[in-house]
Amino acid sequence: MIRTHDAGSLRADHAGQSVTLAGWVARRRDHGGVIFVDLRDGSGVVQVVFREEDAHALRNEFCIKVTGDVTARPEGNENPELATGTIEVVASELVVLSEAAPLPLPVDDNVEAGDDLRLKYRYLDLRRSGPAAALKLRSRANHIAREVLHARDFHEIETPTLTRSTPEGARDFLVPVRLQPGTWYALPQSPQLFKQLLMVAGMERYYQIARCYRDEDFRADRQPEFTQLDIEMSFVTQEDVIELGEEIVAKLWSELAGYTVPTPIPRITWHDAMNRYGSDKPDLRYGVELTELTDYLRGTEFRVFAGAIDAGGYIGAVVMPGGASQTRKELDGWQDWAKARGARGLAYVILDDSTGEPRGPVAKNLSPEHLSGLADQVGAKPGDAVFFAAAAERREAQELLGAARIEIAKRAGLIDESAWAFCWVVDAPMFEKTDEGGWTAVHHPFTSPNAEWLDRFEEAPDQALAYAYDIVVNGNEIGGGSVRIHQADVQSRVFALLGITPEEAQDKFGFLLEAFKYGPPPHAGIALGWDRTCMLLSGNDSIREVIAFPKTRGGFDPLTTAPTPITAEQRKEAGIDAKPKATTVMPGTDGQAAPVERSN
Amino acid sequence: MIRTHDAGSLRADHAGQSVTLAGWVARRRDHGGVIFVDLRDGSGVVQVVFREEDAHALRNEFCIKVTGDVTARPEGNENPELATGTIEVVASELVVLSEAAPLPLPVDDNVEAGDDLRLKYRYLDLRRSGPAAALKLRSRANHIAREVLHARDFHEIETPTLTRSTPEGARDFLVPVRLQPGTWYALPQSPQLFKQLLMVAGMERYYQIARCYRDEDFRADRQPEFTQLDIEMSFVTQEDVIELGEEIVAKLWSELAGYTVPTPIPRITWHDAMNRYGSDKPDLRYGVELTELTDYLRGTEFRVFAGAIDAGGYIGAVVMPGGASQTRKELDGWQDWAKARGARGLAYVILDDSTGEPRGPVAKNLSPEHLSGLADQVGAKPGDAVFFAAAAERREAQELLGAARIEIAKRAGLIDESAWAFCWVVDAPMFEKTDEGGWTAVHHPFTSPNAEWLDRFEEAPDQALAYAYDIVVNGNEIGGGSVRIHQADVQSRVFALLGITPEEAQDKFGFLLEAFKYGPPPHAGIALGWDRTCMLLSGNDSIREVIAFPKTRGGFDPLTTAPTPITAEQRKEAGIDAKPKATTVMPGTDGQAAPVERSN
Repeated sequence: MIRTHDAGSLRADHAGQSVTLAGWVARRRDHGGVIFVDLRDGSGVVQVVFREEDAHALRNEFCIKVTGDVTARPEGNENPELATGTIEVVASELVVLSEAAPLPLPVDDNVEAGDDLRLKYRYLDLRRSGPAAALKLRSRANHIAREVLHARDFHEIETPTLTRSTPEGARDFLVPVRLQPGTWYALPQSPQLFKQLLMVAGMERYYQIARCYRDEDFRADRQPEFTQLDIEMSFVTQEDVIELGEEIVAKLWSELAGYTVPTPIPRITWHDAMNRYGSDKPDLRYGVELTELTDYLRGTEFRVFAGAIDAGGYIGAVVMPGGASQTRKELDGWQDWAKARGARGLAYVILDDSTGEPRGPVAKNLSPEHLSGLADQVGAKPGDAVFFAAAAERREAQELLGAARIEIAKRAGLIDESAWAFCWVVDAPMFEKTDEGGWTAVHHPFTSPNAEWLDRFEEAPDQALAYAYDIVVNGNEIGGGSVRIHQADVQSRVFALLGITPEEAQDKFGFLLEAFKYGPPPHAGIALGWDRTCMLLSGNDSIREVIAFPKTRGGFDPLTTAPTPITAEQRKEAGIDAKPKATTVMPGTDGQAAPVERSN
Repeated sequence: MIRTHDAGSLRADHAGQSVTLAGWVARRRDHGGVIFVDLRDGSGVVQVVFREEDAHALRNEFCIKVTGDVTARPEGNENPELATGTIEVVASELVVLSEAAPLPLPVDDNVEAGDDLRLKYRYLDLRRSGPAAALKLRSRANHIAREVLHARDFHEIETPTLTRSTPEGARDFLVPVRLQPGTWYALPQSPQLFKQLLMVAGMERYYQIARCYRDEDFRADRQPEFTQLDIEMSFVTQEDVIELGEEIVAKLWSELAGYTVPTPIPRITWHDAMNRYGSDKPDLRYGVELTELTDYLRGTEFRVFAGAIDAGGYIGAVVMPGGASQTRKELDGWQDWAKARGARGLAYVILDDSTGEPRGPVAKNLSPEHLSGLADQVGAKPGDAVFFAAAAERREAQELLGAARIEIAKRAGLIDESAWAFCWVVDAPMFEKTDEGGWTAVHHPFTSPNAEWLDRFEEAPDQALAYAYDIVVNGNEIGGGSVRIHQADVQSRVFALLGITPEEAQDKFGFLLEAFKYGPPPHAGIALGWDRTCMLLSGNDSIREVIAFPKTRGGFDPLTTAPTPITAEQRKEAGIDAKPKATTVMPGTDGQAAPVERSN
């Protein structure tokens, strides 16, 4: 090491010692003959005092080596905001290790900068304390999770990232294969398939902090490559996976966020979550629950509501406390908000602040009976606003109300930003109707029905429940998983319900089904979305903050300017335009890979 | 958990307990009314005793759950080869969790199978103890290395794998970018560039067990994706990196191979390694050193030798102990061996077993004086064979002798297969001559000259030495790294020597050079080839044994049959045939990425 001490480690009891430090000039102040420099390294900051003639060339972010004596600061000059604030280093020797040109991005915690600039000069951005701390926290999160898994004899196993295309699900990133021109690898959307194969292989306890890839249209805060803590276990039940998940989450939040997660973490069924919060990832930091009004409003002549009832649908409401005081413009704003979400609007009634009398456009359309009992029915008080949604599809209306609930909490200031509210969402449905009237798997076709439905999911596919579970914190799904089907007969029945013939199953899921012929163990797993988990732990609101070199929208990297055109020679050499040779398909391994479980 | 105990954990003191186990039928033996089953799970094997009528349907590799009582085996029936051999479990309840079809690959440690079969049914292969142990060892290796790094406050940081193409070095795997049609990502050959940027970012101590990609023609035992333990440190010297490398290696070998690595690990300079062993990764488990004969043979009339001397080249020899007893056919075999390596042949002299008289085709061409002193000169005894190599290029001849040395050790049985011989190869040359008479960087153009050469490498570029170091065990390079240049003036001088103009440098290494404008710290690093390291630790001779789902030659995966053709729709959607739009190149970030350091 070219230094003897970390700058941030110096304390009063180092006084009198000669030390050599190395780091960056964070700030420089000239005081007539003397120059004070805040020297920053990875451990923190210390004040160094130079004679003016020694240090006149120093500029911000010069990288320097300093030898000097640690000295107690003169009384009254201590800086209580600095861990090293009781001392300073009086420099006797200075070496400029490298100079810094004028900075395109100031290394200053108090300067706001746009994302493009921050990412183009990410190496300067990361010299700031906030961005640096986020990356370091992520490293600690890895360590904490690994310690839990290691203590339980999990094996960390790497799975391939050059693998087989699965045209079924989300789009794959593709990679041309020069040595077999005309053929392509795909980058995996998750290690799902391989982790299940590892269970068939008898590995029993697998984990990996795995890079995953998904070529999708960029929504806010998505990255083309992302990371999940991927776990799979054999000979376990849902309870074992949940218990492990809780230990990991509890340790992470305890050590990194100073928060003791109350365990066991409360569970809510998927249907309860939808009914009460209009979301399969409810934010439980506040109430504002939904009320179903389908029965209450039966017989209404209001066209919108009556239509939903006639279609066997759903009407519900959510209350905005104090919402009656909103201006006309604010209330109109809700209509725009609803339309931006693809709804036709958001019906509402406001309850007069003093009389509680219902007013507003919907009030005119409701019968006196329906109006008079409404406040009691939805738990509203005078001065509140009541928002309605009605649709032939229960889920559609509930999701609109669920989104309104979140918006209400924001606008009414109901969110305690310092709170953590965890829950497991369990008992997810196995199937949902397709537009063609058939059934499709909600999770994936290898997810096991729960014990109650295992023998009879065909009787009521719309009601059948899976051993599938998501862990949610503050409205963010940070992980999810399921028990997998390991019984050939159950798998056949699920395929039959999904309308997948044995031939199609072979074609689509060939090599996984082949593996499942040879004594697959009962197994279950979970994947934690690691970017989002670390984002929450670090108190950030974008996953970019916990990624060393993230991309912007469209997958562009402002630092390297990737992606780039390639040369004609690269194109030719990679065999991009080659026609595939006719290949012999190997029995039992033809067909496409299985769809995947993802948690990000 | 659906079991109460791990099968392999049961001991005599469990006798009398009722246990529930779950695992696979490893072996079944029928003994008139009673069936013995070896039940295998991840922890080991235990014998289970069934009544015949209960277990008659069981076949090998059925996955079962068994409840029963642990019972001491009848005296004389203990199996000392089994950790559980003093007891057996008398089954009272059996549940078949899943059945197994007849096995295409027997789950039997004693059955040899071809690689294609093993990889196609890798999930059965991994149920065997050897393959399973290799993967589990790798997981432990990860943990051991991480513990060392964590204790030293290293940060584990993930770097991008969708990044920028570097047409310079080895071929990149390319990925078309649908959202920016006509542009491509490249998969990284190593995190080299990003880890250096992280040092500029002030991260100071970085590591990552990183997936890397290299599209090269398949040589034996290469994979298109591979893994390295990648490390970079700031404010350090070569000594610090070597010391850290030694701690990691020593812990790995101590805990996983039961071997105490003598530290400090001996160092040998690159030139000494070439001169003495004809290799930059010498196998030090045996002697058989090279002897230079250029001076000794000066004046010879033997055309081959004289030609090398006239060209300012090199003549050397290596001795095969007892090599005189080889048959004519064996000696001819050496010629074929040399030709297979691209040499014209391998000249030799054999020393008569009793008289020591030199014989053989070369002997006829040497003068009596050269012949008579030869044995002394090369340290050969009667009965030995002396192999020669001569070339205008010293390195070419030395490498031939180095390869012969290894072959001699094999053929003469000189290799102690239980031995571990570590060394660091240090002081590598900075530059080598290009065919055009210029200079090229041996490592990469950011590798620092050592202190002796820092100020004057231009004076003798062929002699200038770098702070570059490789760690070698038993002739395998398992890691390598270097101190990087952080001084702008030194970097300019290196570029100048390499004939790279400032404009070209900007074009080729733009964004790294841009970063280096802003106070880069002195930094150095190393990368350990993790597949090879784990291969050696596990006593295997192919890296495939420590990879869960490896590929065969040509990058084919017998399990999933990747790579595959893609559909026309995938091709269209991915934008593979799109022409790139003209792009505005951002200042300071144009040009190609830097070449990379790799250690696999």
